[in-house]
Amino acid sequence: MSEVKIPYKIYLSENEIPTAWYNLRADMKNKPAPLLNPGTGQPLTAEEMSGIFCEELVKQELDNDTAYYPIPQEIQDFYKMYRPSPLVRAYCLEEKLGTPAKIYYKFEGNNTSGSHKLNSAAAQAYYAKQQGLKGVTTETGAGQWGTALSMACSYYNLDCKVFMVKISYEQKPFRREVMRTYGASVTPSPSTETAVGKKILAEHPGTTGSLGCAISEAVEVAVSNPGYRYVLGSVLNQVLLHQSVIGLEAKAALDKYGVKPDIIIGCAGGGSNLGGLIAPFMGEKLRGEADYRIIAVEPASCPSFTRGKFAYDFCDTGMICPLAKMYTLGSGFIPSPNHAGGLRFHGMSTILSQLYHDGYMEARAVEQTSVFEAAEIFARVEGILPAPESSHAIKAAIDEALKCKETGEEKTILFGLTGTGYFDLMAYQQFNDGTMTDYIPTDEDLAKGFAGLPQVPGQD
Amino acid sequence: MSEVKIPYKIYLSENEIPTAWYNLRADMKNKPAPLLNPGTGQPLTAEEMSGIFCEELVKQELDNDTAYYPIPQEIQDFYKMYRPSPLVRAYCLEEKLGTPAKIYYKFEGNNTSGSHKLNSAAAQAYYAKQQGLKGVTTETGAGQWGTALSMACSYYNLDCKVFMVKISYEQKPFRREVMRTYGASVTPSPSTETAVGKKILAEHPGTTGSLGCAISEAVEVAVSNPGYRYVLGSVLNQVLLHQSVIGLEAKAALDKYGVKPDIIIGCAGGGSNLGGLIAPFMGEKLRGEADYRIIAVEPASCPSFTRGKFAYDFCDTGMICPLAKMYTLGSGFIPSPNHAGGLRFHGMSTILSQLYHDGYMEARAVEQTSVFEAAEIFARVEGILPAPESSHAIKAAIDEALKCKETGEEKTILFGLTGTGYFDLMAYQQFNDGTMTDYIPTDEDLAKGFAGLPQVPGQD
Repeated sequence: MSEVKIPYKIYLSENEIPTAWYNLRADMKNKPAPLLNPGTGQPLTAEEMSGIFCEELVKQELDNDTAYYPIPQEIQDFYKMYRPSPLVRAYCLEEKLGTPAKIYYKFEGNNTSGSHKLNSAAAQAYYAKQQGLKGVTTETGAGQWGTALSMACSYYNLDCKVFMVKISYEQKPFRREVMRTYGASVTPSPSTETAVGKKILAEHPGTTGSLGCAISEAVEVAVSNPGYRYVLGSVLNQVLLHQSVIGLEAKAALDKYGVKPDIIIGCAGGGSNLGGLIAPFMGEKLRGEADYRIIAVEPASCPSFTRGKFAYDFCDTGMICPLAKMYTLGSGFIPSPNHAGGLRFHGMSTILSQLYHDGYMEARAVEQTSVFEAAEIFARVEGILPAPESSHAIKAAIDEALKCKETGEEKTILFGLTGTGYFDLMAYQQFNDGTMTDYIPTDEDLAKGFAGLPQVPGQD
Repeated sequence: MSEVKIPYKIYLSENEIPTAWYNLRADMKNKPAPLLNPGTGQPLTAEEMSGIFCEELVKQELDNDTAYYPIPQEIQDFYKMYRPSPLVRAYCLEEKLGTPAKIYYKFEGNNTSGSHKLNSAAAQAYYAKQQGLKGVTTETGAGQWGTALSMACSYYNLDCKVFMVKISYEQKPFRREVMRTYGASVTPSPSTETAVGKKILAEHPGTTGSLGCAISEAVEVAVSNPGYRYVLGSVLNQVLLHQSVIGLEAKAALDKYGVKPDIIIGCAGGGSNLGGLIAPFMGEKLRGEADYRIIAVEPASCPSFTRGKFAYDFCDTGMICPLAKMYTLGSGFIPSPNHAGGLRFHGMSTILSQLYHDGYMEARAVEQTSVFEAAEIFARVEGILPAPESSHAIKAAIDEALKCKETGEEKTILFGLTGTGYFDLMAYQQFNDGTMTDYIPTDEDLAKGFAGLPQVPGQD
């Protein structure tokens, strides 16, 4: 460690924002398994994908070889609105914990969408515009991804149609209003605007909707309207590619001060934040240039890595999307309603799944009351109210720092603080009121999800 | 203008954060009029004030002469958590408007309290702790100030008791939960915890509360509990002193690139943001070293500067606080319920009132639908959802930039973007739904407020 005093917040200068994304797949010996056409069981072709996704994004999705993708100038300009994001030395947290560990976090919440999702939304909207499309469709649950996409579409002057799970549309009006302020049309799902929506409404008149249904509606509108494509905020290879900007910036900032992390921690839902944060570090590890402990943290109520199966599965509960080989709880698995902490996806990025399968990273599951306890400790000393998702990483970082306190080791810990909790205050209220509970699915609960795994050639 | 390309965001380094606040009063020839004891009509003494405020803050409140107050190291450390705040060159807004004007804004919303209020909360909480007090009390309406104070008290380990106007407590639970997460106790006002609260509840059993009542409760608890003092988030001289950090940072960042603003614009409610932003620039103007056009922007529905009287008045609607000489609409004036844009205070900082009276600044009033139109334009191109209060400054900045477009003048405009609108989405919803209306008080409405002005010696 140099004698230089490391600032509380390390900001790179504008011309140090990465100008190329890093494609982790290029350095993987075992490439992630290809997406399969659910009808044929065969790898999805570029042609099949191009009806749903933009052409450039299809190329990025399928490219396991190119290590660096130059970031188009227009996206670099967009990034300059909110990047570089700060890398923060958590001096106050270290002092509070009394740990000899050195804790850093990369904070992606300093933009109006409130999270890292904007990094990929900007890219996906730009390529849609570049292709001459009129607009894009997507689904959103609580609204984080929808907000990010609305902002990007507004900037590139692209129509944005968001299907928002009806219960969130009604109970969480604030994100909806942010999207509307950015000019997006927001439709509660299921709706009467699609065949699939009408069918579901006829069968279940009182339904409050689901993410699976919203995906189905968004895809239907995209494929049946000329000039529209569907976009997705996590899981996909292209999304991890865009999110590599997080890790590249974090590494550049650490390199500037000669700091090398021992442990890198990220929360894991679909994997976009974790995959982005670890990208350049994992690259070094894959090439044998450096070693890092890399820890994925997931909720005990939705434990894809720690209790899931590595198998081909649908990405959506509606079973209309391609099959991906990933750690999964089964597309029919739905976390208990008392789970307030996000990260609800039943599966996981195929890239991260392969890396985990090959032993390049660890995973652990944590219970939500302990996550909110960590969030509260963090908020009070670091002055940032974290998103529940991000707080999974905080929990693991605190645990590792407290281990250092026991052993006296001065380890350097880097974690991803993906976003702010301004739109998650109902969950904080539960925690403040002492009414928050934990849930761990039983083996029987998981067996039901696994029973729905599709039969495809080569499936274990 | 130098050839250097100015970045989108100018971040000072950590060691460039100001280490002293600037006391604008030191350079004023006509000092702001002293606060008066409402009982005696005589200037309030330090002894009288010290039962309500901390000793150091009383000193700062009364000191018209000391130009610079060193910022204690503990407050500098707190500032490092979220400062320096970015000075942003609004390239995207300039392009959208097609103006030759160069627009800069100082963004104070990148902290969990969401606004500049934290700058003074940190100082006030620190001095209370320093004096060995147990805690502080305050009132809050929508919750911006209460949130900031909760964060500061949590950091300095000080008890924080917030009386929150009952209707906001019930209808705006999110800010309440942020305060609770930071360990504050939040009581809906009127409450049964104070004599004044009980009295009001007995007289008006169904009341939803008012800021005036909440102030009365907070002051009562402070003066009747040993080890407690009352703190206030705007209007006072001490608050403007602390907020000078905004202007000092903005000026340092501009100086770094050799940029000199022609026009400086800030929204004005109680005056803390505007007073802080303009401080060092106004200092130069008062000393005859430079000239700037300085514009205060207020809502047409609460037009203290543009239609108020320069007179002694109560600072609270409950008429228990000292009298201040300021531009006021009368302490009984309450903006129409359809006013959603904040800046509801009937009066104005005595410092700014004196400067306005002496011709050192301009003021203009704008209607709220035009303010939200400006907010939407700004949000879509600059990627930040602004607070309604801040959007008053945006509206005026856009208007000035459009004048430059007409005349071809390349003026440099600096405005204060005081905070984010994440907790103001009910107002945005009104705007998005097209149900927002404007309100301009009639002369008769104003006459009612003026009729309540107190009789004191020297009052016009």
